[in-house]
Amino acid sequence: MSDQKIVVDGFQFSAVKSGIRGKDRLDIGLIYCDNPAAAAAVFTKNLVQAAPVLLGRERLADGMIQAVMINSGIANACTGDEGMRNAKSAAKIVAEALDIPEEMVLVSSTGVIGEQLDLSCFNRGVPDLVAGKSADSCADVAKAIMTTDTVPKMAVKTVQLGAKKVTIAGISKGAGMIMPNMATMLGFVITDALIDPAVLQGMLTESADLSFNRISVDGDSSTNDTVLAMAGGAAANVVIDSLDTEDAVCFQAALSELCLDLALQIVADGEGASKLVTIKVVGARNDEEADKAARCVANSALVKTAFFGQDANWGRIIGALGRSGAIFDPAQVDISFDNVKMVQDGLGLGAVAEKEATIVLEKEKFTVGIDLKNGAASYEIYTCDFSIDYVKINADYRT
Amino acid sequence: MSDQKIVVDGFQFSAVKSGIRGKDRLDIGLIYCDNPAAAAAVFTKNLVQAAPVLLGRERLADGMIQAVMINSGIANACTGDEGMRNAKSAAKIVAEALDIPEEMVLVSSTGVIGEQLDLSCFNRGVPDLVAGKSADSCADVAKAIMTTDTVPKMAVKTVQLGAKKVTIAGISKGAGMIMPNMATMLGFVITDALIDPAVLQGMLTESADLSFNRISVDGDSSTNDTVLAMAGGAAANVVIDSLDTEDAVCFQAALSELCLDLALQIVADGEGASKLVTIKVVGARNDEEADKAARCVANSALVKTAFFGQDANWGRIIGALGRSGAIFDPAQVDISFDNVKMVQDGLGLGAVAEKEATIVLEKEKFTVGIDLKNGAASYEIYTCDFSIDYVKINADYRT
Repeated sequence: MSDQKIVVDGFQFSAVKSGIRGKDRLDIGLIYCDNPAAAAAVFTKNLVQAAPVLLGRERLADGMIQAVMINSGIANACTGDEGMRNAKSAAKIVAEALDIPEEMVLVSSTGVIGEQLDLSCFNRGVPDLVAGKSADSCADVAKAIMTTDTVPKMAVKTVQLGAKKVTIAGISKGAGMIMPNMATMLGFVITDALIDPAVLQGMLTESADLSFNRISVDGDSSTNDTVLAMAGGAAANVVIDSLDTEDAVCFQAALSELCLDLALQIVADGEGASKLVTIKVVGARNDEEADKAARCVANSALVKTAFFGQDANWGRIIGALGRSGAIFDPAQVDISFDNVKMVQDGLGLGAVAEKEATIVLEKEKFTVGIDLKNGAASYEIYTCDFSIDYVKINADYRT
Repeated sequence: MSDQKIVVDGFQFSAVKSGIRGKDRLDIGLIYCDNPAAAAAVFTKNLVQAAPVLLGRERLADGMIQAVMINSGIANACTGDEGMRNAKSAAKIVAEALDIPEEMVLVSSTGVIGEQLDLSCFNRGVPDLVAGKSADSCADVAKAIMTTDTVPKMAVKTVQLGAKKVTIAGISKGAGMIMPNMATMLGFVITDALIDPAVLQGMLTESADLSFNRISVDGDSSTNDTVLAMAGGAAANVVIDSLDTEDAVCFQAALSELCLDLALQIVADGEGASKLVTIKVVGARNDEEADKAARCVANSALVKTAFFGQDANWGRIIGALGRSGAIFDPAQVDISFDNVKMVQDGLGLGAVAEKEATIVLEKEKFTVGIDLKNGAASYEIYTCDFSIDYVKINADYRT
């Protein structure tokens, strides 16, 4: 997706090598709107929250910001008062260079926990960052925020709102420490649509629940997870100031599709991942149990290593279902891999089904369908396999 | 531990190669008591329970059994009515060969889920199994029940009860799919002590909570987990018929030590594991949160891969604590590796502490100490690192 051309009226982008991650690595990105934009965000639910997350919550209280600067390399989490001062100072450096109020700038960070930011990197890098901003540099920002990601992640959509065509675009990053409730997962969505900030917040929460909150790489969630949306308004559509209008419904649908696109790019690029697997549970007693059942399968190390081994090991799936907390009759469960039914009423369907299922598991994308036959609730979650490379990446991450 | 000589008055043991796992592998083991023994068990809490578990619950209702036959290779889980018939038939084959009532025989299975037992293996193997039983073959049973285990697991203790010395011995198996609430974890404890079955059940539940329920290899629990205790009474001590007597307290202490010994052997032999790590949480608000916090750290793939990489990556530990559901102030948390404090009041203590902590992580056994400073509750759990070999073992298990 990195060769996509992303242009959103009213927005400019820039990225530089500031030295946080050595000389040859883009490590600071800027998203700038020509005017104050309606803004909304969804942050990590981890009890431990990084300084930029805490600052972001404050600055979004009035629903307007104009710029966000993102650094990779250091998460600025578990950094105490000094970390908060550094987050504010970094934002101030950007605000002064852009000549906008400090409160109009958010900062966002991803990287190692527990280390302090070095402000000299920002003092050195920000002048070039601001000077270099342009309407067609979005891909550079997508690159600058990568950590263990192997590819930048971008998506763009257009929506017709009455006579006006508006654009929604986004970038994301994240490859490990990924689980629903956000993770070292950053997502930035920008649009030229004109939207009330409170409505934008409602829409973003809904879309994030259907996308970023349904992906899992390793079951770990992080201190820095953030999805930020900025609506600049350059499209000059009739303002969306309610969730109920036809425009709102169209915009919400496009936003959800865009977020799902960005979220699935994260799973597909999961640390060491070679497969993108959808776990689809139906027939649960209620929403909570559908969610638990899907999540437990999606996070099981044994299930995920079996995916890596292309082993249609449904015993591990049913084992994970059994400890998930969902209530069902094991003698009723059906399990399929794409269209191949492998378990019917709790019993394996034998060697032919297994052979066909194994062919499904050789694919890069497939769906595990689970019918608990105990109700009408369903849930879908997106996960990846668990590979030797995952362990290698995470055993070596800091060294 | 496999060269330990285990003899318990009144018990005999045997193991054979029945063909379930090919020609050259011990795959059926027998534990036999010369008389009906008081018996108690703790079974998996997984909603999906194997046929031998369901049968075992039935047969233990009156608290007496005389023999248990254990097979490896096939779990007899998710096998429906046919699986239950097979479990009963296997028990019957043993009962007839031993010339004891069918109801006095338990069966236990570990291995692949979803496949049916082949009764011809039992018809072929059981005559030799029964003919070959002897007082000093306990180690053979420990070998016969291994799956991905690399070593057999045994332990023995003696306790003085008044004028009588009694022996408690045990064997266990399990290497993957291991989490508190039991796993493909089997444990068999035998003693010559004379104990009331209900008291034995109370003691076993308590000891299992302090041992087998506090280990985690991969966070997955299984359909077959069982810890069975049999007390034959050959020691002719004054019967233990209450939990409150001095004898009961001594026996309970020894039983807990024995179970912990067997449980730690399982973690140390965790699939691909190279390190045995104790996670000790103190200062939690209540027992439930202490348990959640310890378990979340012990099961985090990111924390466990960092152990494998010998990386004192406390950011991952604090990230796991933050999503555990335990309530605490992140700016108060202390984290140590053995005696090396690495985090004080939520902040890292820098390069010297990290260097010292890294030396701790190079050891085969160490303790991660976590003080949440939010109360008086504590919990300890035992885990291992997450290695490349774990993935290799589990990607290849059935193929």
